[in-house]
Amino acid sequence: MKGLWLEKQKLQLKTDLQIPEPTRDEALVKVLQAGICNTDLELLRGYYPYRGILGHEFVGVVEKGPQHLLNKRVVGEINAACGHCRFCLAGCPTHCENRTVLGIVNRNGAFADYLTLPIQNLHPVPDNVSTDVATFTEPLAAALEIQEQIGIDENQRVLVVGDGKLGQLVAQTLALTGCDLWAIGRHPEKLANLAARGIQTGLEADVNERSFDIAVDCTGNPQGFDLARLCLRPRGTLVLKSTYAGKLTLDASALVVDEITVIGSRCGPFAPALKLLEQEKVDVKPLIHGRYTLEEGLKAFGIAQKRGILKVLVEIN
Amino acid sequence: MKGLWLEKQKLQLKTDLQIPEPTRDEALVKVLQAGICNTDLELLRGYYPYRGILGHEFVGVVEKGPQHLLNKRVVGEINAACGHCRFCLAGCPTHCENRTVLGIVNRNGAFADYLTLPIQNLHPVPDNVSTDVATFTEPLAAALEIQEQIGIDENQRVLVVGDGKLGQLVAQTLALTGCDLWAIGRHPEKLANLAARGIQTGLEADVNERSFDIAVDCTGNPQGFDLARLCLRPRGTLVLKSTYAGKLTLDASALVVDEITVIGSRCGPFAPALKLLEQEKVDVKPLIHGRYTLEEGLKAFGIAQKRGILKVLVEIN
Repeated sequence: MKGLWLEKQKLQLKTDLQIPEPTRDEALVKVLQAGICNTDLELLRGYYPYRGILGHEFVGVVEKGPQHLLNKRVVGEINAACGHCRFCLAGCPTHCENRTVLGIVNRNGAFADYLTLPIQNLHPVPDNVSTDVATFTEPLAAALEIQEQIGIDENQRVLVVGDGKLGQLVAQTLALTGCDLWAIGRHPEKLANLAARGIQTGLEADVNERSFDIAVDCTGNPQGFDLARLCLRPRGTLVLKSTYAGKLTLDASALVVDEITVIGSRCGPFAPALKLLEQEKVDVKPLIHGRYTLEEGLKAFGIAQKRGILKVLVEIN
Repeated sequence: MKGLWLEKQKLQLKTDLQIPEPTRDEALVKVLQAGICNTDLELLRGYYPYRGILGHEFVGVVEKGPQHLLNKRVVGEINAACGHCRFCLAGCPTHCENRTVLGIVNRNGAFADYLTLPIQNLHPVPDNVSTDVATFTEPLAAALEIQEQIGIDENQRVLVVGDGKLGQLVAQTLALTGCDLWAIGRHPEKLANLAARGIQTGLEADVNERSFDIAVDCTGNPQGFDLARLCLRPRGTLVLKSTYAGKLTLDASALVVDEITVIGSRCGPFAPALKLLEQEKVDVKPLIHGRYTLEEGLKAFGIAQKRGILKVLVEIN
């Protein structure tokens, strides 16, 4: 089969890959489409020494697996957990200490004709959710993780920093809480997507320092972190929603003096993400920048790496 | 009057200072004794551009003020709040946006014959608490702030990194929660203080990575931060209890992947701190390194700046 293979920070299209054989607990999934995520781009830059097929945002069809999933369109949670370590037993499979992670840690990913995942990771896609839309389930679940970690309600002023594809999903999900939400970024045309949904938007100069209860950095760069921190009131909460390339240098004394809480946020729950897509409460279609075939995969990655590009989709089967 | 005056990172003993005149809401306090805190040393290094008399840990006697405090020994909360800003109205006077802070921000401090503070900041010292012991009220309250911010109980594994004077107070207060506590540091003789109170202690190599629910960094240096972070389980909480000289460089992606919470922690509640001292549930006497007169103040600061020195007291009146 074909697949986009990463090795030593070099990506290549391989055409002689073996179709994977699912274990008894796994299903074989024929991939329909996969999306390029910033984490994929960070892996290319060497954020983590992964070797294998890239890709973790996908929609596929089950070709081998249990009867109730066979020939169904599915999306899949990316952490394959052991089920018996202390974190699995504590109900935190996304933090399993023996986990593999689709296209990120020791498990071949979605930019290929086929992938395997544990059966329990798979969720059928509702009929009224298109494959394009369902490809956003994984990042939408990650956006929802914020609300799993901290309570957000209509009494809070919340700032989203970054108008990229993750920032847009975070802003749309936070808007559903009824909080007093501002989304800021550097691209008026992207902010317009959010303004069209009734979200208050602005450029960086439009927000006041020390006025927000919660700030979410979706930029993954030090400037975004600093801006989010400066906009927080004392005892406010800063959510880190991106992986950062390299180290982050910050003023730790300011965190102490203002008693700021910083919380890292990663993978989230798929079921409520699919529900939001099914009910059309989140609109992901404006986030699609373009689509390429698997054979055009290297070109697709080249496009995705350019500044300001939203979601690049790779159509596979 | 005499006082230790800081200006442009230079400390000097002045002998011609004016005795301050309290406003209607303030009391005039004759200082008996004051302690040198790491924050004083950071101010000397330029952590914040303060100009004035240093010192914020003290015991004094009220010479002018309301009848119920007159001639009583008192300790004092260091943040003088405006009472009408949004943070004061929200019940967070320690984060008042117009605050002055004794010996730190726009308010002359305790290394002098006299100081003034708002009457509401003052707490009488119980008769059975010696002046030596009461001088530790402010840092002990700061240690208790951790428990105000996050719930700690007997089901949690908690690590204190740093065996200096703040680390020792933090460890002693956390031990009272019944949590499974470890205190680690670099000085066997200081750790022995804690071991004598039944606290599990060790050197840095004695603790395992990814095994603690909560870690408190009391070192104020990047190595302490990194060690505390490495010892946390996924979704653990890292408490920053020191001001840091300069910037801190950290692996923000690790905070995201492990969904770590980092929380800054500053001033705490005086009433429970005094209660612990009155009931002798915390033992501060082993933390006293030595005592000097105000005239020997510069020498006292010289000693306090040496590595591994515990609390240096300055006897004033």
